[in-house]
Amino acid sequence: MQSQVPKYVTIKILLEARFERDMHAGDRLPSEAELCADFAVSRSTIQQALRLFERDGVIRREQGRGTFYVGPAKGRTEQEPSQLLEATIRGRGGNEVRVLRKHIQRAPARIASRLRLTAEDRVVALERLGLVEGGPIVFIYSFLPLAIGMPLLEAEAQIRQMSLAAVLNDFHGCKIDRVQQVIAARLADPRFAGDLGVDVGVPVLEGERTYYAGKDNPVFCTVSYYRGDRHNFTMLIKDWR
Amino acid sequence: MQSQVPKYVTIKILLEARFERDMHAGDRLPSEAELCADFAVSRSTIQQALRLFERDGVIRREQGRGTFYVGPAKGRTEQEPSQLLEATIRGRGGNEVRVLRKHIQRAPARIASRLRLTAEDRVVALERLGLVEGGPIVFIYSFLPLAIGMPLLEAEAQIRQMSLAAVLNDFHGCKIDRVQQVIAARLADPRFAGDLGVDVGVPVLEGERTYYAGKDNPVFCTVSYYRGDRHNFTMLIKDWR
Repeated sequence: MQSQVPKYVTIKILLEARFERDMHAGDRLPSEAELCADFAVSRSTIQQALRLFERDGVIRREQGRGTFYVGPAKGRTEQEPSQLLEATIRGRGGNEVRVLRKHIQRAPARIASRLRLTAEDRVVALERLGLVEGGPIVFIYSFLPLAIGMPLLEAEAQIRQMSLAAVLNDFHGCKIDRVQQVIAARLADPRFAGDLGVDVGVPVLEGERTYYAGKDNPVFCTVSYYRGDRHNFTMLIKDWR
Repeated sequence: MQSQVPKYVTIKILLEARFERDMHAGDRLPSEAELCADFAVSRSTIQQALRLFERDGVIRREQGRGTFYVGPAKGRTEQEPSQLLEATIRGRGGNEVRVLRKHIQRAPARIASRLRLTAEDRVVALERLGLVEGGPIVFIYSFLPLAIGMPLLEAEAQIRQMSLAAVLNDFHGCKIDRVQQVIAARLADPRFAGDLGVDVGVPVLEGERTYYAGKDNPVFCTVSYYRGDRHNFTMLIKDWR
């Protein structure tokens, strides 16, 4: 059985960040021997990573001259983190949010704490995938208390066409008035890496959101994983002191 | 030579995220065999990761009963991403920003583009480490055009006590009025992992900032790497549509 977390994926991600941070198009890459020494990994691991770059057109080998950096593989979408991606996805034609799985489970500890539930309380859990121009960009876990989530399970057509917050706000009497978000860096887990179309172990941005109807009244939580190679969060800061 | 990117570090990070996302204190862990199958890695890799959790008090083995989740290792600092961490660090006693290295180099492509320099232009580059309560929390690369950066090299005492933006604003006539920030997920690179006190390959939040004196007048750039185990970005969103 092939490992789910091959080392050359980690090396590829580290090299890609170095290329983007340090190099110019046309620069010559360090030799394979230098890269082996730098990361203390085998030559075959370095070669596997370089083959992926070559396939994606990020590097170019020239017989007798060496290997050269061509430039980053693809453009990223950029988003103000205060604009929720679901709104962005729904705002454009050809983009969609697919419901992959739905079930009822015990509330995870972190979610129970956000929603002020006990460790015994069950929640409606949804797993959804957001696609932009046909390609997956975000995997979204959503957790709703039973009283709020059960009616949603009957309304799947609505969920596909509107954000959960909009459905609850417009049709279920939950007046959502604020969202608290925590952003963290994580690694892609086998549980969602396949749906997201990335290798296990690549870095992903995690956005955990709690939606409130009033300051002390949490309604539901989502935990979203964004493909780092297709999406960045951007923001303008006026008060820099 | 020991690999700089051991696989058990990746497995530990993935498991830690699962624990935090899915488990309650006191829950029994899946068996080693189940974990091996789930990640398709060897038993010794799983055991190395579990030993680290045991050392940190995250899990507890009970003879004849199994292995149990105790709870997350440490607290994190949380920060509004619009409050720059340098301000937070300097605002508290016992916290500091250390200058580790300074030199003059060609501007990396990404930085040259942000600062509207050519590929041939050189910049002053600083590497700094931000510590909170004595422990490293952020590694900061800064890049300044020569005309702006050279005077700063003579003023190292100031740099230690104030943010670069504040020194430039208050003493060098650069009226900083906005900062553009891009947040991404990355893996810790051997070049800064040691200073930051983390293993190579763990996920880190990257904040790339361009400081402007007027909309079309970039002054300098920083690229910061935050320890994911000690720091999160949080934000309150009022306009959720």
